[in-house]
Amino acid sequence: MISIILGGAGFVGTNLIGRLIQEGQTVVVLDNFSRGQKEYSSRFIKSNNFHIFECEASSFDNLHNSFSLVAKLGGIDEVWHLAANSDIPAGVNDPCVDFKDTFLTTFELLRVMKIFEIKKVHFASSSAIYGNLGDITLHESVGPLLPISNYGAMKLASEGLISAAAESFLNKANIFRFPNVVGVPATHGVLLDFIMKLKKNPSRLDVLGDGTQQKAYLHVSDLVDAMLVVSKRADAAKVEVINIGPVDEGVTVDWISRQVVKRVSPDAKILFGTGNRGWVGDVPKFTYSTEKLQSYGWKPELNSADAIKCAIDEIALQFGK
Amino acid sequence: MISIILGGAGFVGTNLIGRLIQEGQTVVVLDNFSRGQKEYSSRFIKSNNFHIFECEASSFDNLHNSFSLVAKLGGIDEVWHLAANSDIPAGVNDPCVDFKDTFLTTFELLRVMKIFEIKKVHFASSSAIYGNLGDITLHESVGPLLPISNYGAMKLASEGLISAAAESFLNKANIFRFPNVVGVPATHGVLLDFIMKLKKNPSRLDVLGDGTQQKAYLHVSDLVDAMLVVSKRADAAKVEVINIGPVDEGVTVDWISRQVVKRVSPDAKILFGTGNRGWVGDVPKFTYSTEKLQSYGWKPELNSADAIKCAIDEIALQFGK
Repeated sequence: MISIILGGAGFVGTNLIGRLIQEGQTVVVLDNFSRGQKEYSSRFIKSNNFHIFECEASSFDNLHNSFSLVAKLGGIDEVWHLAANSDIPAGVNDPCVDFKDTFLTTFELLRVMKIFEIKKVHFASSSAIYGNLGDITLHESVGPLLPISNYGAMKLASEGLISAAAESFLNKANIFRFPNVVGVPATHGVLLDFIMKLKKNPSRLDVLGDGTQQKAYLHVSDLVDAMLVVSKRADAAKVEVINIGPVDEGVTVDWISRQVVKRVSPDAKILFGTGNRGWVGDVPKFTYSTEKLQSYGWKPELNSADAIKCAIDEIALQFGK
Repeated sequence: MISIILGGAGFVGTNLIGRLIQEGQTVVVLDNFSRGQKEYSSRFIKSNNFHIFECEASSFDNLHNSFSLVAKLGGIDEVWHLAANSDIPAGVNDPCVDFKDTFLTTFELLRVMKIFEIKKVHFASSSAIYGNLGDITLHESVGPLLPISNYGAMKLASEGLISAAAESFLNKANIFRFPNVVGVPATHGVLLDFIMKLKKNPSRLDVLGDGTQQKAYLHVSDLVDAMLVVSKRADAAKVEVINIGPVDEGVTVDWISRQVVKRVSPDAKILFGTGNRGWVGDVPKFTYSTEKLQSYGWKPELNSADAIKCAIDEIALQFGK
């Protein structure tokens, strides 16, 4: 049986491919290569169980054609839907970005899955759907869900569409609410941003905001592991909504900036901005509950601090530092 | 200052017009007249404070042109966004219905409001965003929000978009989660459905489902009143999310069918279907909390039973019975 990874040439998808092949599945990646790159998965390309095709998932016709092509290779068992915009600030300035890349990809995917009678989907949602609930601990049963970015809004919209589809034709949907995830191949995020800045100017690092923003981070290897553990639970709900993240309370941007400087450019001066938000749509501090995931017996190998340290090293190497 | 009612030629909008004019506002209705009708508001047409224009709100260009036209009449203070599909089963069969009429209308409206620097929106959301949470009481702070219809999904998506817009350019957003609303001019819903069936065949009434579905109903006059009360609260949150509904637990479809038959065709035989759902996407029974609204000192004039009785009479008269 075939697993399709939509957006599988990106950061998380690239890390998922190997795990699924390891489990004996045939993996087909569909990606528009706007942020993802074919080269990220080049080590799998000789495998008979791996295929990668270009596909613009926000286009029904394009997606339908790609699924027709994949169907010739064998029965399609499930879709891992990881296709989305990953540049949150870009989506705040122009709502059309997340409309097309984060929302339409889900909308058109579900239409095509219905036609091809594919009944199982795993979806990369986000803690951004919670918005800024202040001191309230973000567990899966809180509301109202008031995202403060179009990215969060279109992830929430996608959750809703998947939930409705589970009522009409899906047999199983896993909705994984991702935390901040770090690792390689880095395509976006604070670590890549800092490292690129220091590559350009090794003597100073300008940080958005005052550095007090605190967030929890998960290493991508742990993220993929958690998704696979949850996806194999026989007794899970038909629509399983689950926060994925570390068990700690996270680290500050200040601390992260010092770790990056230490590894990449020890003599650089760090200059902070003002305010506790990096950009409109950035949630300054939140407490993200992973109790449900822990109750399944899962915990991450790396806590936030170790995940960051590990990822800094990996990304520095990715960019030849 | 001008209040725009998007979708204002429909059931709720028609009832809102008079109240806003009464308060001294100039009201401009924009509607595509797909379900709403110009005739519903004909009694206001001689008023200098009322205008009604055709506009397809799912089209950015169309909406932008309409707003340009309205801006020539005066400053636009706020938008009441009531434009949506109201046929939930139609949207279950074809997701494009709610995509266009329920989601795109919100998406394009917010783009246009940003351009015209209009900073206040009142949005008609729905209890359908909660999905089927079983025995859990539906108050505003429960989650996860897993709608079981595309209608509910696209209302949830709209809430998310509005919430994100409040972070970037809106000053104020009221998100009203509507219950089942009854009254005239009836354009959809169980009462209209029953009355039309009896008009066609006065001797029998076929009911979808076994009649045990229980829901709370609000009369449209109470709904409009609640919206106006909430919209005037000075101390409300920037993004105010509020369930609107009666304080009782509702009435069953069985009871409703007997009331309709009694009023419209006393000799008709009532025939029930099987199962406790009328259609895919129908939530059979839920307990909808209006505690928050009650804490604002508001309560409806009519409970569910009285609202239904009143509306049956109004709709029967609307259709000459």
